[in-house]
Amino acid sequence: MSSSCEKEILKLRKQIDNKLEKLFTGRQPQSLYEPSSYILEGGGKRLRPLLLMLAYKTVKGNVTGVINAAVAVELLHNFTLVHDDIMDNSDKRRGRVTIHKKYNLSTAILTGDNLLAIAYKYLIKDCGNDANRIVDTFTNGVVEVCEGQSLDKDFETNNSVTLKQYFKMIEKKTAALLETSTSIGAQLANATEPEIKALTLFGRYLGIAFQIQDDLLDVFASEVDFGKFIGGDIVEGKKTFLLLSAVETARGKDLNKLKLLIKNKGVDKKLVNDYKEIYLRLGIIEKAKDEVKKYIGKALKQLEIFDEQKSLALVNLTNSLIDRNY
Amino acid sequence: MSSSCEKEILKLRKQIDNKLEKLFTGRQPQSLYEPSSYILEGGGKRLRPLLLMLAYKTVKGNVTGVINAAVAVELLHNFTLVHDDIMDNSDKRRGRVTIHKKYNLSTAILTGDNLLAIAYKYLIKDCGNDANRIVDTFTNGVVEVCEGQSLDKDFETNNSVTLKQYFKMIEKKTAALLETSTSIGAQLANATEPEIKALTLFGRYLGIAFQIQDDLLDVFASEVDFGKFIGGDIVEGKKTFLLLSAVETARGKDLNKLKLLIKNKGVDKKLVNDYKEIYLRLGIIEKAKDEVKKYIGKALKQLEIFDEQKSLALVNLTNSLIDRNY
Repeated sequence: MSSSCEKEILKLRKQIDNKLEKLFTGRQPQSLYEPSSYILEGGGKRLRPLLLMLAYKTVKGNVTGVINAAVAVELLHNFTLVHDDIMDNSDKRRGRVTIHKKYNLSTAILTGDNLLAIAYKYLIKDCGNDANRIVDTFTNGVVEVCEGQSLDKDFETNNSVTLKQYFKMIEKKTAALLETSTSIGAQLANATEPEIKALTLFGRYLGIAFQIQDDLLDVFASEVDFGKFIGGDIVEGKKTFLLLSAVETARGKDLNKLKLLIKNKGVDKKLVNDYKEIYLRLGIIEKAKDEVKKYIGKALKQLEIFDEQKSLALVNLTNSLIDRNY
Repeated sequence: MSSSCEKEILKLRKQIDNKLEKLFTGRQPQSLYEPSSYILEGGGKRLRPLLLMLAYKTVKGNVTGVINAAVAVELLHNFTLVHDDIMDNSDKRRGRVTIHKKYNLSTAILTGDNLLAIAYKYLIKDCGNDANRIVDTFTNGVVEVCEGQSLDKDFETNNSVTLKQYFKMIEKKTAALLETSTSIGAQLANATEPEIKALTLFGRYLGIAFQIQDDLLDVFASEVDFGKFIGGDIVEGKKTFLLLSAVETARGKDLNKLKLLIKNKGVDKKLVNDYKEIYLRLGIIEKAKDEVKKYIGKALKQLEIFDEQKSLALVNLTNSLIDRNY
């Protein structure tokens, strides 16, 4: 990443973190706001608020008057994390104990609910005269995330999920929120309709690339970088891009092994390497990398209608995302 | 209730039910929208949408262009029901199996989340140029409900809850949503600030009365009318108006018995009548009835600034609510 862009992104991230840090100061009841602060302190890349801010910059050339909307998409993201962790029965998130484990189920449900409500509270602060449309866009994002998570849960008991169904699921579960962020950034910047459309599609394609890369990282990242057990998706029998592509490609023994993994809803940790080898042998890793590149290309193509100088930071952020090691 | 008002309310309720009935027709995934329809089919009085509509009428003299906002407050209410039932581990709701029992925990969490999002979707349809303020009012309602539920959960492990804390809790948990409904009805009707304030306070006072009456009904309703086990709050050791008032009034043996109930977080079903007798002996029932009357009076007083003809249906609905048997 160019060092000026890097500095700019760090500065924006700092701005977001500062705002998030004080968001619930002094609010009562503590039983609700302490876990809310806890999840926000967990950090993360603040990808969604950055996308909102840099989409705005891509239109306007600067970043002003959108910090509350940026906070809103981060709160929305954290709402999904808290509730997803319950549904997936996860013990850890970003290396820290999840809310339903640290506190209890009720606290986690309420914390998520309240984060979503407060997201609207912040969103509305920056909307000006365009509240109807922006609230609608934001809400569509929430609905898609719920639908996507519902489809993902359906996958757990469906042994014949196709790649096509997978793409539909990740468009909703992962890409919708990135799309919502860039779309709202564009709308706040009073972009033209073609500009809004371009930045919306940019977010969607980026989101698809991001999820496939996440599937890849689960299997091939180094454990230290990724912060969680490598191969977890294989152990859990998750229907990822890798597994579903492998099923479509494999024949004979390999196919039987993959089908067994699906039938048994996962395998023992000791067998993770066997499945990694199948993925390598069948060229699934290259296929996934190509898919990531394809969608990143589609995303970046959408930015061509904008002034190169204005979109530079967004392009840089995009490229830095796919530079994650695997 | 006057028969013309009764007819009007039935007509509005039918309008709400018709809209709710078709709300999710054809929507996918089924795993999300089937439980959403299931909870809406459970019926109920549709009190919140009726309050919104009749608050609007109190200002405007008719009811038009608010059906989507009315649907929004009912969806918000149902979101709270689905999530509260998880937190309270309830098996039944309105005589039907609760969502987390009929389906599973994940489905119930997602159904609630999605109902809340779709509530915003409908709300925004009727907002016109006033979206910022109305969305903000609605969101304040959601936040208060979450804070109220959080306080209520805190009560479970707090053995020295005061009546003052109880009032703060029910203002948020119960009254906030009624207040949100009447306030939005007033705002949609382009009411003046004093009118909005009056209808907002009306909703709050009505909500407080409504909750105290609910506490009363739990102990003194007939089982058939109420649709659930009578005395459940005593069995669970819930910190209701009755219990907290009794603790403030009782001395000697009665006080010891009440403290035991709190300490043990409830009592055996067989002992419910003992506690009913304490309530009767200490005059707690009369006290609660007086409190309901007091808040209904405060609520109705707020309506005095409006044209009597226009507010008639809202007054009638209010009176019909406290005519519930106990």
